[in-house]
Amino acid sequence: MKVNRKIITLLTDFGTQDGYAGVMKGVIWGIAPQVYIADLTHDIYPQDVKQGAFVLGRSAPYFPRGSIHVAVVDPGVGTQRRPLAARLGDCFFVGPDNGLLTPLLYRAERMGGSVEVVHLTRREYWLPEVSSVFHGRDIFAPVSAHLANDTPLSDLGAPVDDPLRLEQPYPFPLDKGWRGQVTHVDHFGNLETNIERNHLVGFIKPPQVRIGDTLIKGVVNTFGDGLPGQMVALIDSGGHLSLCVVNGNAAETLHARVGDTVEVVV
Amino acid sequence: MKVNRKIITLLTDFGTQDGYAGVMKGVIWGIAPQVYIADLTHDIYPQDVKQGAFVLGRSAPYFPRGSIHVAVVDPGVGTQRRPLAARLGDCFFVGPDNGLLTPLLYRAERMGGSVEVVHLTRREYWLPEVSSVFHGRDIFAPVSAHLANDTPLSDLGAPVDDPLRLEQPYPFPLDKGWRGQVTHVDHFGNLETNIERNHLVGFIKPPQVRIGDTLIKGVVNTFGDGLPGQMVALIDSGGHLSLCVVNGNAAETLHARVGDTVEVVV
Amino acid sequence: MKVNRKIITLLTDFGTQDGYAGVMKGVIWGIAPQVYIADLTHDIYPQDVKQGAFVLGRSAPYFPRGSIHVAVVDPGVGTQRRPLAARLGDCFFVGPDNGLLTPLLYRAERMGGSVEVVHLTRREYWLPEVSSVFHGRDIFAPVSAHLANDTPLSDLGAPVDDPLRLEQPYPFPLDKGWRGQVTHVDHFGNLETNIERNHLVGFIKPPQVRIGDTLIKGVVNTFGDGLPGQMVALIDSGGHLSLCVVNGNAAETLHARVGDTVEVVV
Repeated sequence: MKVNRKIITLLTDFGTQDGYAGVMKGVIWGIAPQVYIADLTHDIYPQDVKQGAFVLGRSAPYFPRGSIHVAVVDPGVGTQRRPLAARLGDCFFVGPDNGLLTPLLYRAERMGGSVEVVHLTRREYWLPEVSSVFHGRDIFAPVSAHLANDTPLSDLGAPVDDPLRLEQPYPFPLDKGWRGQVTHVDHFGNLETNIERNHLVGFIKPPQVRIGDTLIKGVVNTFGDGLPGQMVALIDSGGHLSLCVVNGNAAETLHARVGDTVEVVV
Repeated sequence: MKVNRKIITLLTDFGTQDGYAGVMKGVIWGIAPQVYIADLTHDIYPQDVKQGAFVLGRSAPYFPRGSIHVAVVDPGVGTQRRPLAARLGDCFFVGPDNGLLTPLLYRAERMGGSVEVVHLTRREYWLPEVSSVFHGRDIFAPVSAHLANDTPLSDLGAPVDDPLRLEQPYPFPLDKGWRGQVTHVDHFGNLETNIERNHLVGFIKPPQVRIGDTLIKGVVNTFGDGLPGQMVALIDSGGHLSLCVVNGNAAETLHARVGDTVEVVV
Repeated sequence: MKVNRKIITLLTDFGTQDGYAGVMKGVIWGIAPQVYIADLTHDIYPQDVKQGAFVLGRSAPYFPRGSIHVAVVDPGVGTQRRPLAARLGDCFFVGPDNGLLTPLLYRAERMGGSVEVVHLTRREYWLPEVSSVFHGRDIFAPVSAHLANDTPLSDLGAPVDDPLRLEQPYPFPLDKGWRGQVTHVDHFGNLETNIERNHLVGFIKPPQVRIGDTLIKGVVNTFGDGLPGQMVALIDSGGHLSLCVVNGNAAETLHARVGDTVEVVV
C-alpha cells in the first residue's frame, strides 16, 4: 500500500530535556499537519557539526524517496552563515550552511542525482518572528513543512553553488595496506573507521588491524564470532571497518576517540 | 493542506528506559487511533513540577490550535491531589493539579482566551483498572484521547475554579535596573532568566549583567557575536535575557543553577 | 472514531545518539508508509536481553490489538541464532530468538491466545543487502512493515515450536511469607520485585518487607502516603510489590540491583 505522505526527520544537538525538538514538531504540524516526523537523534555533541554530518549521511539514505531531513547543529546561528535548503538526489536537506550536508551532497553527486541548493531568503516561509538563536524553530522547521507541502525549492530562496563542504578524511595508502582513522564512536563504544570493505579486497592474507599498541589479527564477520570481551575487527553495517569488543566497549577499553589512527596491513 | 488531525504531546519525568511513555501512547492510540503524538520531553528532573511547568509553558504555544498537552510530573499521584483537564485558550491541558498548568493558564488569561478547568471524576473515560501510582497511563492518557475524539471537557468531570498555581517569580526593580533570577538551565548550559526584553527598553547605555562575581558588559544578538569561550548575555528565543558561554557551558563555568540571582543595571 | 491503522513499536539497546532507531523507521515507512511508530525505549542496557524482555512484556499489553512489537537486543546478531516473527495472542513480535519474547509468549499461552512462531527465512521480505551486524535494520524492520501490510506470518518463514525462553524467576514460599527478588530498577530508582499482589492476600497482619538489613513495615497505597525520604513498599502499576523512597531513589539508598533478594513475611 502506497500513500502520498511526506516524512520529515530531525537531527540536532538540542538534547531532549528542554522541549526544543518538540517545539519544532509543533511548528511543522501547524503548516503541514499530514507529515510523519522521525527523530534521527538530538544527541549530537553540542556544536559538533562533523558528527552531525556523519550521522545524517549514514541515516538519510534509508528513508523513502522525497524525505526531508532537517539538521540543526548550528554554532553560527544568527551570524552571516546562510540558512539553506537543498535537493540532494532523492532527498531534501534543510539546515545551516556549515557542512552538515556534506556526505549527502557527495553521495548525490556520486550517484548522478540532481543537486539544487538555495539560500533561504524568502521570509514568508518562516515564522513571523525570527529569533537570533533558534533558527531550527523559526526558519528550518517551517521551511521543511512548506517543502512537504510541495512548495518548489526555487520559491524558498536564491540559488547557491558553493555550499560549505567539510573535509572528508580518506584513508592513506601504505606499502602493504591503508592508514585511516576513527570516524565515529557509537553508543556501544564501537570504533568505526573510514577504511571500507573494498580497501581490503585483494589482500592475499588475512589483514592485521593496528590501533595504538593494539594489534587485531583478522577480520571476523560479526560480534558473535568472537568471545565475550575479545577485541575484534569487522565490516560494520555501513560497510566500514570497525573495531569492537564483543559484549563490551572498545572506546573505553582502548581510550580511543574520533580522529585516532587505525592501520590495516597484510 | 489542512487535515482534521489532533495532536497530543507528552511531557513527563519518566525518563526513557522503562517504556512508561510508550505505554501512554499505546493507551492513547487504543482510544483515538488517528492522533499524532509528540514527545515534548521525558527528562524533567524527577518530581520537579516547576521545571515541568516551565518547559510546558514555553513549548505548548508553538503547537497548532486545539493541541492537547499531557503533563505528568506527579509526586502526589494517588493522594488527594485532583486530576485535571483544562481548556486554556487555544490548547488543552491534562495532568495533576499541582501547578504544571500555571504558565499556560496565565497566558490564556492574559490573552483573553477561554479558560475551563475540570476535576476528572468520570471513571468511564479512564482505563477500567486504575493503579495508585501511574495515573499517566490510567487516567491522563485515556482522557487526552477522549478529548481528541471531541468529548466535551464538561463530560469529563466537575468544574474547578481554583487550580493550584505555582508562584511565578517576577524581576524586582532596582534603582537603575532589575534584579531577577535564573529560571532554567538548558541542555547547553545556557542560563535563562526571568528578565525580559522589555525590561531593557529605555536603557540609555548598554546594560551590564551581573551574576555572582561575574560582570558581563552589554547584550549581544547571538552566540556568534562572541568569541568561543566568551561569556555573553543575549535575548534568547523566548524573549528572555540569557547568559551563555559561546560554544561552551555557562552553568558549568559559573557553577550556576535555577534560582540564582541575576542583576541587569546601567 | 476507528481507523484501520497499524502500530509498530521499537525496543532496542541502541541508545539515541547514532540514528540507528531512526533508520529503522525509514526502512519501515519505505514499505508501509501508513503505520504509526512508537519508541518503547532504546535505553535497554547494552546486550541485556532479560531487561529487554521485561520492559517489552510489561509495555506491549497496553497497545491496541494487532500491534507489532520489534525488539532488538541482539548480542548474537549474525550468528546461528534464528531471526523470528510471532503472533502471541493479540499482538505480534519480531526479533531475535534469544528469549526477548518470553513474557509475551507466556502471557499469550496463559490467556489461551493463539501462538504462532516462525523462523524468518524468506529473504524477499528483507532489505536486498543484509549486514552481519544490524538485523534490526535489514531484517526485523522490513519484516514488521510487511506484517503491517497484512503479509501472513506463514509467508515469512518456517514454523518454530521451540523459541528460546528465558527462565522466569518465581517467588519461593517461606514458612510465613515469600522470598522473591528485584526484577527491575526503574528511572526513579524504584525496585520492582516478582512478588505480586495476590501473594499478599490472606496475610492476617500487615506484612513486613525485608531487603538486606532494611525492614519496611506495612504496604502503603502510593508514594504520597509516606513522608519525603521515607522508604515504603507498595503495589506498583503492574501489580508487583515495589520498594520506593518517597521523592527519592531506593536503588541508590539501598545500593540494590536486579537479582537482590526481597522477603515479605508476617
